[in-house]
Amino acid sequence: MTETKSIHAVQQAREAELAQQVIGSFDGCANPRLKQLMVNLVTHLHGFIRDVRLTEEEWATGIRFLTEVGQATDERRQEFILLSDVLGASMQTIGVNNEAVGDATEATVFGPFFVEGSPFVGQGGNIGSGAAGEPCWVEGVVTDTDGVPVPNARIEVWEADGDGLYDLQYDDQRTAARGHLFSDEHGRYRLWAITPTPYPIPSDGPVGRMLQATGRSPMRAAHLHFMVTAQGCRTLVTHIFVRGDELLASDTVFGVKSSLVRDFERHQAGAAAPDGTVVEGSWSKVRFDIVLGPAGV
Amino acid sequence: MTETKSIHAVQQAREAELAQQVIGSFDGCANPRLKQLMVNLVTHLHGFIRDVRLTEEEWATGIRFLTEVGQATDERRQEFILLSDVLGASMQTIGVNNEAVGDATEATVFGPFFVEGSPFVGQGGNIGSGAAGEPCWVEGVVTDTDGVPVPNARIEVWEADGDGLYDLQYDDQRTAARGHLFSDEHGRYRLWAITPTPYPIPSDGPVGRMLQATGRSPMRAAHLHFMVTAQGCRTLVTHIFVRGDELLASDTVFGVKSSLVRDFERHQAGAAAPDGTVVEGSWSKVRFDIVLGPAGV
Repeated sequence: MTETKSIHAVQQAREAELAQQVIGSFDGCANPRLKQLMVNLVTHLHGFIRDVRLTEEEWATGIRFLTEVGQATDERRQEFILLSDVLGASMQTIGVNNEAVGDATEATVFGPFFVEGSPFVGQGGNIGSGAAGEPCWVEGVVTDTDGVPVPNARIEVWEADGDGLYDLQYDDQRTAARGHLFSDEHGRYRLWAITPTPYPIPSDGPVGRMLQATGRSPMRAAHLHFMVTAQGCRTLVTHIFVRGDELLASDTVFGVKSSLVRDFERHQAGAAAPDGTVVEGSWSKVRFDIVLGPAGV
Repeated sequence: MTETKSIHAVQQAREAELAQQVIGSFDGCANPRLKQLMVNLVTHLHGFIRDVRLTEEEWATGIRFLTEVGQATDERRQEFILLSDVLGASMQTIGVNNEAVGDATEATVFGPFFVEGSPFVGQGGNIGSGAAGEPCWVEGVVTDTDGVPVPNARIEVWEADGDGLYDLQYDDQRTAARGHLFSDEHGRYRLWAITPTPYPIPSDGPVGRMLQATGRSPMRAAHLHFMVTAQGCRTLVTHIFVRGDELLASDTVFGVKSSLVRDFERHQAGAAAPDGTVVEGSWSKVRFDIVLGPAGV
């Protein structure tokens, strides 16, 4: 027993010494922030290998997995972002950079489907552009954390259509289910969108295989994306989710915050919508009041 | 102050809760080892993001870096292994899997230049196959941790030539500076190789740029690779290094162990070598006794 123990101590010392040696290799790094990042990364990386006693076969599997993630990544598909998303790393980064301030609306993942230069739809406009899906009336008011209305806030809204597809996933180049408008002088906004539908993240690549191997679902809870920018305010990137969606607890990118779950009121065909429209089929209605934190927080 | 403190606590709780949520997403993983790996990986990954307060720009830089590492990887080049090497992850994995046992020779990195099916050179043979460089006589004895000689151990030796290039890096397909032999009935072995020379790892890719950005050198200390296999013994993958090499303290893949540094005796032209050969130019001589740990440790 004594011998085993003493070998163990020698082994522990060797491992700790190696980690220190790697950390020390960054002593000459002229950029203090980069040095801090590398030292902390190395500490956690070596901590992982030592904690789990990583086998050489597992190491090789890890190298192969990263290689496959690299091969799956091209101009149309970013498998590394997907990996970051399903490990909650994207969401944790967003949280760290959007610290809680008063009752500011919580941020969530940006996702890979935002496009610059979406159509301007104006107050009461429709972002659908003919996309499939049930119409959804969205309205609310933008305020700051003191409750003061924020006029002229730019509100970008985008989402998957009723089939769970973003326009970027269409075979043609058409734009659909995205648009922007500006809050009015009282901070109010209103628009027609599509009732959100759940959809799977791209799961035919290595990240999808990892989810399958670990018994996880590739599904995202149904959601509607928002990006809200206004002078003097912190930019908000978030979603709203649908109360009652059974995927709320298992959203594969951990985007759900209970504060972002909203009631989507269901209405039957024929009921007049808030803007007087008589919709042909069923439709839904949701209220989402947005609170922007101050800039620079 | 009180408000700041309370916001801080809310923020900390949000971050910890997210990490727990991600960990919980692996609850359904049917493979307990895979579950352990994922849970520990997520713990360290989220620890890193939270410790350093990773900015969204830094996150994007990280995604871009991994993407570039993926693009630099193909059938002839494995940039992810290079990355693992320069972060000491390869060496730490090897250490974890080759725990200290008695006076067994320490293992070190395998490297990307081993090739199956090297030429058989026999006792006293020359692995050079015409490669450039100063001749080096290598001799030693293979024993187990009880000091008992190990006959018939397969000893693979490979190295860069005197210009710092492995045969895999030559433009033609020729084999050079690699070979194998078997220890004799007393565990002894002897061969001609090339005095090791320092060389840089491939540094024209993203890993090289990372080394440059952090003020690190891409140089490896001069070394001679060994892989030794024998029945009943743990396979040993290691190098020997050259005492006096000024790169010993800064080997870019952290392969150097003080126990692996050897004296390379220098001899002038004309001095008779141990096998009676009269070498035309200068040559060196090194002794490397190899102690194999028991199999299954």
